[in-house]
Amino acid sequence: MLYSKLFGKTNKNAKEFNSINATLLEKAGFIDKTMAGVYTFLPLGLRVLTKIEDIIRSEMDKISSEVFMPSIAPKELWEQTQRLLTIDVLMKTVPANEFAKEKNAAEYVLNSTHEEIITPIAKKFYSSYKDFPFAVYQIQTKFRNEPRAKSGLMRTREFRMKDLYSFHSSEADLKKYYEIVKQSYWNIFKRLGLGKETLLVLASGGDFTEDYSHEFQTRCETGEDIIFFENKSNIAYNREVAPSLAPKLNNASEKELPLKEIEGKEIIGVEELAKYLKIPVEKTTKTLLFENDRSEVIAIAVRGGYDVSEEKVRKVTKSHWIKLARAKVVKSITKAEVGYAGILNLPKEVKVYMDESMRDRKNFETGANRTHYHTINVNFGRDLPEPEQFYDLKVAKEGDFYPENREKYEVFKAAEVGNIFPLNTKFTKAFGYTYTDNEGKQKPIFMGSYGIGSSRIMGVLVEKFHDNNGIIWPESVAPFQFHLIGLDIADEKVKSQVGKVYKTLEDKNIEVLFDDREDKTAGEKFADADLIGIPHRLVVSKRTGAKIEYKKRDKKETQLLSLEEVLNLL
Amino acid sequence: MLYSKLFGKTNKNAKEFNSINATLLEKAGFIDKTMAGVYTFLPLGLRVLTKIEDIIRSEMDKISSEVFMPSIAPKELWEQTQRLLTIDVLMKTVPANEFAKEKNAAEYVLNSTHEEIITPIAKKFYSSYKDFPFAVYQIQTKFRNEPRAKSGLMRTREFRMKDLYSFHSSEADLKKYYEIVKQSYWNIFKRLGLGKETLLVLASGGDFTEDYSHEFQTRCETGEDIIFFENKSNIAYNREVAPSLAPKLNNASEKELPLKEIEGKEIIGVEELAKYLKIPVEKTTKTLLFENDRSEVIAIAVRGGYDVSEEKVRKVTKSHWIKLARAKVVKSITKAEVGYAGILNLPKEVKVYMDESMRDRKNFETGANRTHYHTINVNFGRDLPEPEQFYDLKVAKEGDFYPENREKYEVFKAAEVGNIFPLNTKFTKAFGYTYTDNEGKQKPIFMGSYGIGSSRIMGVLVEKFHDNNGIIWPESVAPFQFHLIGLDIADEKVKSQVGKVYKTLEDKNIEVLFDDREDKTAGEKFADADLIGIPHRLVVSKRTGAKIEYKKRDKKETQLLSLEEVLNLL
Repeated sequence: MLYSKLFGKTNKNAKEFNSINATLLEKAGFIDKTMAGVYTFLPLGLRVLTKIEDIIRSEMDKISSEVFMPSIAPKELWEQTQRLLTIDVLMKTVPANEFAKEKNAAEYVLNSTHEEIITPIAKKFYSSYKDFPFAVYQIQTKFRNEPRAKSGLMRTREFRMKDLYSFHSSEADLKKYYEIVKQSYWNIFKRLGLGKETLLVLASGGDFTEDYSHEFQTRCETGEDIIFFENKSNIAYNREVAPSLAPKLNNASEKELPLKEIEGKEIIGVEELAKYLKIPVEKTTKTLLFENDRSEVIAIAVRGGYDVSEEKVRKVTKSHWIKLARAKVVKSITKAEVGYAGILNLPKEVKVYMDESMRDRKNFETGANRTHYHTINVNFGRDLPEPEQFYDLKVAKEGDFYPENREKYEVFKAAEVGNIFPLNTKFTKAFGYTYTDNEGKQKPIFMGSYGIGSSRIMGVLVEKFHDNNGIIWPESVAPFQFHLIGLDIADEKVKSQVGKVYKTLEDKNIEVLFDDREDKTAGEKFADADLIGIPHRLVVSKRTGAKIEYKKRDKKETQLLSLEEVLNLL
Repeated sequence: MLYSKLFGKTNKNAKEFNSINATLLEKAGFIDKTMAGVYTFLPLGLRVLTKIEDIIRSEMDKISSEVFMPSIAPKELWEQTQRLLTIDVLMKTVPANEFAKEKNAAEYVLNSTHEEIITPIAKKFYSSYKDFPFAVYQIQTKFRNEPRAKSGLMRTREFRMKDLYSFHSSEADLKKYYEIVKQSYWNIFKRLGLGKETLLVLASGGDFTEDYSHEFQTRCETGEDIIFFENKSNIAYNREVAPSLAPKLNNASEKELPLKEIEGKEIIGVEELAKYLKIPVEKTTKTLLFENDRSEVIAIAVRGGYDVSEEKVRKVTKSHWIKLARAKVVKSITKAEVGYAGILNLPKEVKVYMDESMRDRKNFETGANRTHYHTINVNFGRDLPEPEQFYDLKVAKEGDFYPENREKYEVFKAAEVGNIFPLNTKFTKAFGYTYTDNEGKQKPIFMGSYGIGSSRIMGVLVEKFHDNNGIIWPESVAPFQFHLIGLDIADEKVKSQVGKVYKTLEDKNIEVLFDDREDKTAGEKFADADLIGIPHRLVVSKRTGAKIEYKKRDKKETQLLSLEEVLNLL
């Protein structure tokens, strides 16, 4: 490929984005941002994406069959699983204008995942015990109503994804296949150059399972996930589910002070409040109200400095889903504006759950359930009964302990590159999908689903593999293997030599990007090569004569090689 | 591939759809209908689709670069071209539920085409005369708010498409590239097995050009397009734009009768009306009201039996777009319910255009602009002035003449398999995209766009290539080259022989679908093979011994061949 014919250009002055992958991929001409979280893949970017997907495809083909499901679906399918009204990243389509509406006013769901599509198809074809297990996958564009899209290809509103669905006649068989997929995923991440720095992490099991689901997380400074790793047990959790013990408070000797309501106009948030009240943050309390699928309102209290884990709350309260209560609900329950909820004087129908960080507190603050007011010097046993039970409801934070062995967690950032879910019977039940066993009885079908975001992986690769000058692609996904630079190409001898090298590589079907531009300096060409990040750089110039200067992208040394030696490099 | 491991099954009892391609593709296990106009490609179908797209890709790579643009886009881009509110097949996305809305209430356009995306990207990169021409394409899923989706893969709400966009520094250069794309398209259709029966047809130029655009239309009984072909001039038009002369009326000797209003309660539509009034359909008049981009209301009158061509009306009235007037507009103009519009007594601001089929009429009917009433015995010169000018505004029909040489058209049905548009400066102007010529002056940029619907082609191929027993795939896109059937496989000898044939083909990377099912009769296996339509059938049985029975899908004769001879077939 001639660089001069490549659509898209490097642009060292392109906008800086707040993520490395977006910035480098835009500067190097791999992607173009259409809007926040929505990108065009330019030829260089599409080459990388295609290679990533081809690696995924080749491993998936060993354990399943490829299909291609639609992006839009009738709402009825999503109503049947009760996800139409609960998945907060779900989008639907409507006619774009009045003329379109007159033609066809129907609304369709824009699938963010495909359990609702594949389950009815499987049901149509397979219902005998002899048919199981089977699995299908697709590689496809997915859509998410993402509020914040700010990490380049790592969090987008539209993205490429491989999703695999498996169907089993028993939970044991699902578990067996689950392990097969894990191995397949390890193969994929190894081939993508991410094997060493990726680990299997326990994450939310959703309402599919009492167990956890699993995420493949790659250690990455700019990742959006926070991993809690306990070395002695060799166990890793996503922060959202990491069981945690807060460090103990040292307040045994404190005396109980008189309860007091203090005005703090528009003081919301524990940090600001602690400052205002001149108390440590640990003395404050965060109280959040949630709604769940049973239309209950639930209050959760954690010690100031902690956040509430919705996932833990969901599990503890045995809810299918929970959502932060809407403003109008908060107002009606607390009789106050949002921000002043507290654990004193809540209506009886609101059940209060206390996190274990609330244990052994003295003289703590809580919202007064009165606009602009906060209550201080609250004490259990005096101002409200000592709680019968404490729960683990908080988002773990650095310094917390793993409850099983009371060891301190190692905490680091990571980027999710894959996930696997034991869906069990959630979707098969919703669609009334059972099988007939060898005695003619109807039995439940167990399902798993397994995702890898291919475009997200492209972003993660850039985050992991770059230096100050640009990207450093792993060979397996590099857009080209060789970056050939011709210098002094006004010189006929050089022109003919570099042309020969280019032709030889092309004839041998070796991927080469030839920077044939005549109006660029050597410096500009070298800088572009570093930015683009192709693993092997070749330079032909007056100085190199009949030889070729060879340099690896991630090394400093250069070598003079013959064309034959170059061909033997790969 | 083992048939027993293939996801999806043949189902001869599957629902009959009102299109051959949907019926056969569902019965043979290539696709599964998720809803009207939305399909899942099962493994067999995906193989065919991928082959079609690979052929398109290999030809496109010779004349352009592949990119991958997003499906969703900000509304602003579509507002800039004023298409957001006018394209009646356009859809947008909105949050699917209240929780999603609270997270991100934004609406996005679901792209039905990508001029709005590619033009700003091109503008970002290329603005010097030296940069032109260039062209990019993508193969991608597209969305259309289709009111009637009833022709299987030939008209869907979600479909696969290759779209190519080219950019030029002059109209002449665009025309040159236009011819290159035509040749590329001919190569593609030839490779797809559609070369012979496909023709280049003149179609609407939209508001991009005074000229026509071009469609590649494949002769097809079940196609949705009607082609008007004039043999002597060797010219073909899509019906929507076919210039036409109606057969002359033979009423010169008729006497003028007295004008009369006749009640015809709820008699709407010329056929019904003619019956009711006991006059020939040719005596009735169809009057339609349109709105256009200048907010004008326009009345169009054609002789009963003809329809109005919106495209011709658009051109004659020099509108960017026209739409059938909304009901409320019709009511306010005619002071009557919809269905009783006529050419007498319309408000002055409504300009009336008469089709040439209105010429030389006597005693004709027209709507009375009064609910339930029709006026008969209307005569030009007496009841309203003789029109100064007649236009060609009607949809041509069988029996019409080509105006240039007054020869009768040959009329046949066809399916559109590709289209090419000279967009000229419509989009570059909308985005303020110009280039600097070699004298430093800003010049307009000319654009072309070129589409091929890959999933639609899959449907057309089935419509063209099938018999009573099933599909007959062209070799270039068949899901597999060989369909291997093992009969009597309980017999060890046969089992070993058929296994050997399968392994040999697989080892040589020859695509083979091996029907290894033990619970099916020979008849069932043969029927399935015919239904699936793989071009070469191989049978191994007790009877064939060490040989293999070979049959082409579209032939009756069988041959006994050695394995070596089989390998030499391809």
